[in-house]
Amino acid sequence: MSRGLVVTDVTVTPIAVQDPPLLNSVGVHQPYALRSVVEVHTDAGITGIAEAYGDDPTLDRLRRAAAVLPGLDVFDVHGLAQRVAVGLGEVVADTPTVLIGYASVAKTVAATVAAFEVALFDAQGKATGRRVCDLLGGAVREAVPFSAYLFYKWAGHPGLEPDEFGEALDPDGIVRQAKWLVDRYGFGSIKLKGGVFPPDEEIAAIRELRAEFPDHPLRLDPNANWTVQTSLRVAAELAGVLEYLEDPTDGIADMARVAAGTGLPLATNMCVTSFADVPPAVEQGAVQIILGDHHFWGGFRACQKLAGICETFGLGMSMHSNTHLGLSLAAMTHLAAATPHLTYACDTHSPWQTEDIIEAGVLSFVDGAVPVPDGPGLGVTLDRDAVARLHEQWRRCGIRARDDIAAMRVRHPDWTGGRPRF
Amino acid sequence: MSRGLVVTDVTVTPIAVQDPPLLNSVGVHQPYALRSVVEVHTDAGITGIAEAYGDDPTLDRLRRAAAVLPGLDVFDVHGLAQRVAVGLGEVVADTPTVLIGYASVAKTVAATVAAFEVALFDAQGKATGRRVCDLLGGAVREAVPFSAYLFYKWAGHPGLEPDEFGEALDPDGIVRQAKWLVDRYGFGSIKLKGGVFPPDEEIAAIRELRAEFPDHPLRLDPNANWTVQTSLRVAAELAGVLEYLEDPTDGIADMARVAAGTGLPLATNMCVTSFADVPPAVEQGAVQIILGDHHFWGGFRACQKLAGICETFGLGMSMHSNTHLGLSLAAMTHLAAATPHLTYACDTHSPWQTEDIIEAGVLSFVDGAVPVPDGPGLGVTLDRDAVARLHEQWRRCGIRARDDIAAMRVRHPDWTGGRPRF
Repeated sequence: MSRGLVVTDVTVTPIAVQDPPLLNSVGVHQPYALRSVVEVHTDAGITGIAEAYGDDPTLDRLRRAAAVLPGLDVFDVHGLAQRVAVGLGEVVADTPTVLIGYASVAKTVAATVAAFEVALFDAQGKATGRRVCDLLGGAVREAVPFSAYLFYKWAGHPGLEPDEFGEALDPDGIVRQAKWLVDRYGFGSIKLKGGVFPPDEEIAAIRELRAEFPDHPLRLDPNANWTVQTSLRVAAELAGVLEYLEDPTDGIADMARVAAGTGLPLATNMCVTSFADVPPAVEQGAVQIILGDHHFWGGFRACQKLAGICETFGLGMSMHSNTHLGLSLAAMTHLAAATPHLTYACDTHSPWQTEDIIEAGVLSFVDGAVPVPDGPGLGVTLDRDAVARLHEQWRRCGIRARDDIAAMRVRHPDWTGGRPRF
Repeated sequence: MSRGLVVTDVTVTPIAVQDPPLLNSVGVHQPYALRSVVEVHTDAGITGIAEAYGDDPTLDRLRRAAAVLPGLDVFDVHGLAQRVAVGLGEVVADTPTVLIGYASVAKTVAATVAAFEVALFDAQGKATGRRVCDLLGGAVREAVPFSAYLFYKWAGHPGLEPDEFGEALDPDGIVRQAKWLVDRYGFGSIKLKGGVFPPDEEIAAIRELRAEFPDHPLRLDPNANWTVQTSLRVAAELAGVLEYLEDPTDGIADMARVAAGTGLPLATNMCVTSFADVPPAVEQGAVQIILGDHHFWGGFRACQKLAGICETFGLGMSMHSNTHLGLSLAAMTHLAAATPHLTYACDTHSPWQTEDIIEAGVLSFVDGAVPVPDGPGLGVTLDRDAVARLHEQWRRCGIRARDDIAAMRVRHPDWTGGRPRF
């Protein structure tokens, strides 16, 4: 049965956006981050849009899947998953960054499904005059709280001018950065991307943040750059200070060892990143909070499924972020608005992006939260000139996959990115 | 934000339908079964409909919740849950039958939410020209397989004429019944409601069914009327014969003891009937299959959440049925159509109902499966004359709550309904 709103054509446009030199456990952000714009056109003249990863393997998968989507009913999310599986055929496990855990075939397929599912929901909303959050069950919050995402960073990329954000390589720099983010955006909680410097330096940064922001919940995320022993030592020092400690160490088994030795809640977007990871994590008590992300869990419905699991098994939920633009922020905001079991403020890289692909004025941070856009679908509109410009930037930038290790080697030729370093 | 499709008024109409004397572990069906018709009217002139339980405590809750629904956006399923919780205020744990497990506050609230959620989805579908299964993610099957639901039964209710279905009190009667159901409806699997006679008689019935239907999957459901010891003995005898054994004994702990002693898969709609039951059941390995039921799990989305949990934790899924009419059958069919992780044919009491509240011709069994109705929403229409007639029947029948024990006492005055009897 068709109700006259079926996919006719799909466009995938890779883009590159300027990105500051943010440091993490494996290296440093490259001067450009890759994303893509997915447009799903329908026979009703309605086009659904979404933002996805933009590395070459992702682009290849998006295009292979796109080829089998014509004829799909935009409401048929289950049919989408079936078509994507068929369209992809043999799938090589792959992830756009090791910072979201190990690659798996399931995750790789899920990321492809997600890109189109978001666009389908946008089209559904435009066709029915409904917001995506309404189609996801209704907004339980009309503004979605995000946390200030602090990064150690260089003043600028090697060989380039310093950027507008300034250097942050010690506790003072981190506190300065936090003040800027909290003053400008009103964030009510703070997360520090750690795993960059020896743990004692990062503990010192957390303590200075605590002194400066006595009421802000604080999080620390060393991206699995610590041993179990280091994790336990830091957890002992920061219990009662942190809201949660995110991925101190690698893998469910070692996370469970840390969890067994501390009362500090552990969060993850690295050891539980697909549904197959959930049962062993639950059985071993490895984590107390899972960070969902529609980009790699498989879309909105997959994240709501994850939220249902977390609610049922007594786990908390937050939302993970990779570098993203406003189109993904809109998607994250609708999803978070329509997810009752979201127990912590979400992560976002938004403040670090100086370029965007959506028309300005719809999305903004008010007291650290993004009000849900009011228009149908995702409620945001592509800025076609910006997309063209960022696509041209993609054409010229020469980067085709995220490689934080290579970016670090520009300054430190012997850098391996091997973990755990501490 | 309102898009102009909000609830203005709700009607709850209790009805009573003739019901044959079907036997089970606690007693026998009364001459009338109670249901209710829920109509959610909107400011757009669209009315969403649903079928719910019809006992007095349920009616009271439906009406208390209905009073706070005006103003609710029909897409706001999350808002529905919040309003129902407020509208109900203090809730006394209660269930329309002990055959769906113990009462709990969560289940009681969920059943109230479910009735309205189904009606909201029907209204959403009518407003958007979409089938409910489309709004639930799309149909992964266009016809939903059901199983033949066999019951031991008397020829007629005490003091009344024999009914059209005939007596079934021994293996021959059960096989005769199965032939009628399979011939008439084309069912591809068979379930026997057991727990009525000593286990050896029911084992004999299963063996005769196996001889008569060598290729039909068979299930046996004694509704927790056996001890662990009896359960293990029957499981040993019927391993390799049954597709699954449903609720042989009572409670998660004892079901886990049975599960530990047999390779025969165990199913339940009694020991896992709310989300709070899931973690202990998973941890103890108590069951391999959960029978969802939108009527008491909390609606469509709650059942999809349950399906996501079952899929993630390696559990099978089927669908439970209480006595219901065509409006519930339509809802069950849409839900099952839009639930990828449904691994067994669903239960239905449909063949046992001689009266209905929907216009004929839309729902039918073809080769044991119900094709998904093609119209918007649930795709079925209330037969107003029938609703009026069955409401009048409710007014006159004098039954206000299901009581299979009392019905049994008409013939067996010393009947207690106590379990386990075997």
